[in-house]
Amino acid sequence: MEKLFTVRLAADENAVEILDQTLLPNRVEYLRLETREQLWEAISELRVRGAPAIGVCAGFGMYVIAGKIAGDILPELRMAGEYLVSSRPTAVNLSWAVNRMLRCAEENNGSRERMLTALRAECNAISDEDIATCRAISENGLTLVKSGDGILTHCNAGALAAVEYGTGLGTLLLGKERGWEFHAYCDETRPLLQGARLTSFELDHAGIDTTLICDSAASMLMKQGKIQACFVGCDRVAANGDVANKIGTRSVAVNAMYHGIPFYVFCPGSTIDFSCASGDDIVIEERGADEIREKFFAQPVAEKSVKCWNPAFDITDAKLVTAIVTERGIARYPYTESLRELYPDRKSPSEATR
Amino acid sequence: MEKLFTVRLAADENAVEILDQTLLPNRVEYLRLETREQLWEAISELRVRGAPAIGVCAGFGMYVIAGKIAGDILPELRMAGEYLVSSRPTAVNLSWAVNRMLRCAEENNGSRERMLTALRAECNAISDEDIATCRAISENGLTLVKSGDGILTHCNAGALAAVEYGTGLGTLLLGKERGWEFHAYCDETRPLLQGARLTSFELDHAGIDTTLICDSAASMLMKQGKIQACFVGCDRVAANGDVANKIGTRSVAVNAMYHGIPFYVFCPGSTIDFSCASGDDIVIEERGADEIREKFFAQPVAEKSVKCWNPAFDITDAKLVTAIVTERGIARYPYTESLRELYPDRKSPSEATR
Repeated sequence: MEKLFTVRLAADENAVEILDQTLLPNRVEYLRLETREQLWEAISELRVRGAPAIGVCAGFGMYVIAGKIAGDILPELRMAGEYLVSSRPTAVNLSWAVNRMLRCAEENNGSRERMLTALRAECNAISDEDIATCRAISENGLTLVKSGDGILTHCNAGALAAVEYGTGLGTLLLGKERGWEFHAYCDETRPLLQGARLTSFELDHAGIDTTLICDSAASMLMKQGKIQACFVGCDRVAANGDVANKIGTRSVAVNAMYHGIPFYVFCPGSTIDFSCASGDDIVIEERGADEIREKFFAQPVAEKSVKCWNPAFDITDAKLVTAIVTERGIARYPYTESLRELYPDRKSPSEATR
Repeated sequence: MEKLFTVRLAADENAVEILDQTLLPNRVEYLRLETREQLWEAISELRVRGAPAIGVCAGFGMYVIAGKIAGDILPELRMAGEYLVSSRPTAVNLSWAVNRMLRCAEENNGSRERMLTALRAECNAISDEDIATCRAISENGLTLVKSGDGILTHCNAGALAAVEYGTGLGTLLLGKERGWEFHAYCDETRPLLQGARLTSFELDHAGIDTTLICDSAASMLMKQGKIQACFVGCDRVAANGDVANKIGTRSVAVNAMYHGIPFYVFCPGSTIDFSCASGDDIVIEERGADEIREKFFAQPVAEKSVKCWNPAFDITDAKLVTAIVTERGIARYPYTESLRELYPDRKSPSEATR
């Protein structure tokens, strides 16, 4: 099949190009994002999604925006950054990438040319680092499973959520390249169906044996002995190891513990928020009722008078997480210690303002 | 609003009339089922669903079929019964009602008129007993909760699943009649969305505070302290208390145990299968991939090449069930003893051929 890409800087450097993931699996269409409003809309509407991909998109986006600012770049770029961060408040990679680009701009606030050259290098570095990071995460993941294993996935943390490989699915994709055979079971992941539309799409296209299930069927699949491990990505990890990820992740983890199945979280270090003590400090984005009642359906499945509760994320308690797999290694409970051992350079309280 | 009915014998007694639940909540339409093929299709396609309603429908159906048999009724009625039972193999109330009607026919196998009169009384008795049973279950349920409680529901076990009140929702509906205020949280119940289409519809219409959620959000709602009890109906209870119910029930129960929230199963005694030792002996109906990939959606949410696993039911381990609430009282673990105490008349091994 045609080689897909998730996010890249356009050849003319006047836009960020993304695959519009809201149209998958029925249509493969790319978008050119030329303005901050288009970038905001694409991130908010999940046209580009997945923590690493959002970060890379924001990095490229800040460079594109900077190039279009007529006068003094820095003040307006700061405003643009604040605006972009508001598009997905729970996604720490978004603010991380925006702040990294702003710091680069501050450090190169001489001539316009010098700043733009530095910003160009910085956003490309964010992208290159993401590829290297995902590959390292996937290598570490391969030490936790064996060929033939049944792996349950929730949401999408694959190549479509990053630049290459991805986090949660990288182990399956890298293993496949080396001839390992996995049996992937993909939660469809209501309400936005990333598991059906994205994960089953990309794993099936990669030649991996793929079975789609409703989220609520995972427990019975575990009971039947079909699942040897659960793999998820995440949107934010607190310093104590509590994990914010797509709604439904918590339920997978609770069921995995009941059935004695390991539950693995895959993420780059940039997803760990050492300034956040626990999951209680993470703001959970609540989205509209129409995603449950109407979106994707031929006609509404519930009446307008019925309220809906639609949190985009949930918190998985650290004690439910068997291991957190990063590019630097594998952390295990208690995470307050094991995560700091992997990231001693991230101990500073100034982390919050990175 | 217009008073709805779920299933009844048509005034001309030539058909069973049902509300076509596959069209809810967008259209309220009734169907006349005049032939065994129409009855089979309606049960198989979940136009009428819920263990008690299926039993009542089958009872009325056997009477309607008997009235249309030209010659010797009994042999052909036996064939029709066997055919009807094949429409939903996991639903024990279906074979229970069919066998009860066949036994009635055998015991009144004199004149045609005598047999039809007896069958008419028998199917009406099944319906009347269901109403009385659901009311008694609901009375017992009210002893387990208090006004103001948040109640999580899965699938639909309401008046739409029975003749009146229902099993799992009867406590909410009866409590509401008495001025109790509940906060109902309804799992949408993928893939067929009975929680969205039916449960939220009927609870909202009954004036109960109703919030619809995706199945996978239940765990986070429990963590937030919003749920004081989980209420589900069931399709079959094994002698040891293992419960077969809509796919996803097991996941609710596992999460309830993790969060220390009681998990209650509501059912009439006819749903308890004393001939079935445990959940391992229950055949789980597997349904088509299109229910996950296409049904209800404006366009397919996954590619045809992706396999789907679509079990209609799962098994909830007896140890996860806080109590089983029946018309005769409340059974608690270990169920092998407590269920037999409630139903000493059902001890015989000949139960299997009831």
